[in-house]
Amino acid sequence: MSTIAAISTPAGVGGIAVVRLSGPQAFAIAQRHLRLTLPTGSQPVAAFAVFRHHGSIIDEVMTTCFPAPHSFTGQDTVEISCHGSMYVQQTILAALLQSGAQLAEPGEFTRRAFLNGKLDLSQAEAVADLIDSTNAANHALAISQLRGGYAQRLKELRNQFVDLAALLELELDFSEEDVEFADRTQLNRLLNRLEDECARLCHSFSMGNAIKNGVPVAIVGRPNVGKSTLLNALVGENRAIVSDIAGTTRDTVEDTMVLDGVTYRFIDTAGIRQSDDTIEALGIERSFQAVEKAQVVLYLTDDAATLDDEIAELGTHVDLSGKHVLGIVNKIDVAEVAGGEDTLRISAKTGRGLDVLQSRLTQLYGQQQVTNEPILSNLRHYEALQHVLEALSHVKEGFAANLPADLIVIDLREALHYLGTITGQVSSNEVLGSIFSRFCIGK
Amino acid sequence: MSTIAAISTPAGVGGIAVVRLSGPQAFAIAQRHLRLTLPTGSQPVAAFAVFRHHGSIIDEVMTTCFPAPHSFTGQDTVEISCHGSMYVQQTILAALLQSGAQLAEPGEFTRRAFLNGKLDLSQAEAVADLIDSTNAANHALAISQLRGGYAQRLKELRNQFVDLAALLELELDFSEEDVEFADRTQLNRLLNRLEDECARLCHSFSMGNAIKNGVPVAIVGRPNVGKSTLLNALVGENRAIVSDIAGTTRDTVEDTMVLDGVTYRFIDTAGIRQSDDTIEALGIERSFQAVEKAQVVLYLTDDAATLDDEIAELGTHVDLSGKHVLGIVNKIDVAEVAGGEDTLRISAKTGRGLDVLQSRLTQLYGQQQVTNEPILSNLRHYEALQHVLEALSHVKEGFAANLPADLIVIDLREALHYLGTITGQVSSNEVLGSIFSRFCIGK
Repeated sequence: MSTIAAISTPAGVGGIAVVRLSGPQAFAIAQRHLRLTLPTGSQPVAAFAVFRHHGSIIDEVMTTCFPAPHSFTGQDTVEISCHGSMYVQQTILAALLQSGAQLAEPGEFTRRAFLNGKLDLSQAEAVADLIDSTNAANHALAISQLRGGYAQRLKELRNQFVDLAALLELELDFSEEDVEFADRTQLNRLLNRLEDECARLCHSFSMGNAIKNGVPVAIVGRPNVGKSTLLNALVGENRAIVSDIAGTTRDTVEDTMVLDGVTYRFIDTAGIRQSDDTIEALGIERSFQAVEKAQVVLYLTDDAATLDDEIAELGTHVDLSGKHVLGIVNKIDVAEVAGGEDTLRISAKTGRGLDVLQSRLTQLYGQQQVTNEPILSNLRHYEALQHVLEALSHVKEGFAANLPADLIVIDLREALHYLGTITGQVSSNEVLGSIFSRFCIGK
Repeated sequence: MSTIAAISTPAGVGGIAVVRLSGPQAFAIAQRHLRLTLPTGSQPVAAFAVFRHHGSIIDEVMTTCFPAPHSFTGQDTVEISCHGSMYVQQTILAALLQSGAQLAEPGEFTRRAFLNGKLDLSQAEAVADLIDSTNAANHALAISQLRGGYAQRLKELRNQFVDLAALLELELDFSEEDVEFADRTQLNRLLNRLEDECARLCHSFSMGNAIKNGVPVAIVGRPNVGKSTLLNALVGENRAIVSDIAGTTRDTVEDTMVLDGVTYRFIDTAGIRQSDDTIEALGIERSFQAVEKAQVVLYLTDDAATLDDEIAELGTHVDLSGKHVLGIVNKIDVAEVAGGEDTLRISAKTGRGLDVLQSRLTQLYGQQQVTNEPILSNLRHYEALQHVLEALSHVKEGFAANLPADLIVIDLREALHYLGTITGQVSSNEVLGSIFSRFCIGK
């Protein structure tokens, strides 16, 4: 097996950076460039060293050597902590590659940890989710999954099913005798438990997905009603250029805010109007696309009288069904306005009414996350569980219709297969490739 | 003394990140969140641990504990290597701050290393230069300085002077006897050696400064002559937006290229013309500012006949003296052009002639760096050495005019003072503050 190397810290300049090297030749390759202090027991060993390449000193570094199998990957691993200059990081990495290491692919360190049995597949995926976590809510989901989470419960249920399925298959060999080794009552109880568990997890997915990836919120309306001002007021900085000239915003401008532990991705868009300006027309097209992708639409106007018509007009361009559309009248600092019960009245400029807008958002997404039940946030697991549920319903139909065991076993095996893909008890190179390609390099 | 904490790896998301904690309470503060394996000898100790805060698991981390004085700062230090999520990094840092650590100021770890005698001041500055290094040339300067470099030689010369100055001062006590304790020949030899050394170092500064910070190169000319196309061709990517519409570039667009180990910072500018468009006029103003800051001006035209007049016209807006102005005729793919010996003829679109342009640049900046003599790249050292040279010339004048020793000693002490500021043998809080404020946080 090859020895892989990569820069594991975030890209860019910082005080220090870490280059990671893992594989059977890790110690030998590192020794070509520095004097390593090798571990004698199972504990990692840290020591200072000078990194040289072609006779030149590249940096004064700190090395930590992890002996196999007591490392993240399960293989011999060296972490080189160097000064965080781009040049130093890249020169050290290039030196290790010249000495025989191969550049790690995205997620390859974690993939090796999975292949060496240090993590199951759902835990490996949790590592990526943990690295991507941006707020308390999606961090809690990832940590729970990294430390076992629902995958552990699914794994236990699966193991019980495997035993029952084996008994069911045993009956096939004695089919002429018409015996029943598998306890039908127990089987039914297990079936129901698993079905409940899977259904509950699937149900939690839309919430989990929003927690994980952030709730997309489009800010739309006619030109010059204060959309960019609202974005800036919400995220608390001068993110978007604001001017009195209608059509200032061309590209969509995006920024995030965390409210009550949940991330909202606000997308400021070009004002919607008929325009002959090519660049502006392209911008307006992007406004519609932003609405399409949004879960929440903040429709902004400075004229309460036309608000409903404007939203209706937007509806002729984009399908608004299934989205939360909040009508907002802006510029109440200039003129007080009436409006329906549901209409939010704000001044993006002075900040008036923004608290009400924010609490409206947390009503939609904030409360429901307060639960101790596991929440599903992984699309792959969601799809696998959908397959499990389908197979389980066939199993139940089979029992109800008194179908022969050999037919029922086929559906049961299918349910077991998809359950196994979640933790990686069942996996293929293709699935692994698609999972780990989503990782950053160096992890 | 307080215990300080900061994220030491580059800002952003990556596989792993490192939070650093240093000071007398470092171990105690870390122990509140994880089970540390403390060092018993002088060697650092690395171990896995679970980081908790308010009862919740924040991450599974790797800790390395360095016992004082065997750490970078000379104080007890803990490095916590966590998953590189922004949320995880910030939560761990916030937890340490809540438990009594103070947020480190920029460069505070290195400042403590200096105050604890682990580095001299020029080495501390070299740490910042090393982190900022972007190419082989400025990296070599920084490493040389980190490992002693010219500061070491200046320190030795200074120590010899200190002895001689003491003897010279002794003469003052015996001034009535008219004795000479200080050997005038030796003093003169030392004076000349020091003067030569300082003068040579000062002379190397303009080169050193260009190597360290990159050579600023402005690309200017009338609208639509292909300036953005040239920038893209030089840096090899679509850095600037290119269109057939004159005035496409408004903001200056900057990107760098390393040629022969030296970084060039190319600045693409708005085309220069009379314009009534407010935004474009602001852009053109920035073009002139870019020329002012540049060491090299690439003046681009598509009409060889007017090139000289155009450059002369530019000269009425900006002082071009002391700058390398290269006249370039672009678009030779469309029409072949004549032109003077010095005129470069290129096609930014097809890449023709770019090699000649690049070799012209390396003639200006590339060759001279090939030297084993130390090169001065630090502005503070340069200014100190200028003071040293001035004081030394007064000392020599004093000897030549047979001035009394007490007058000469004043100038000699001044030279010693400024020499001492380079390595930090002489320092003030103000100077240290200004040096370390330029560091990144976490180093």
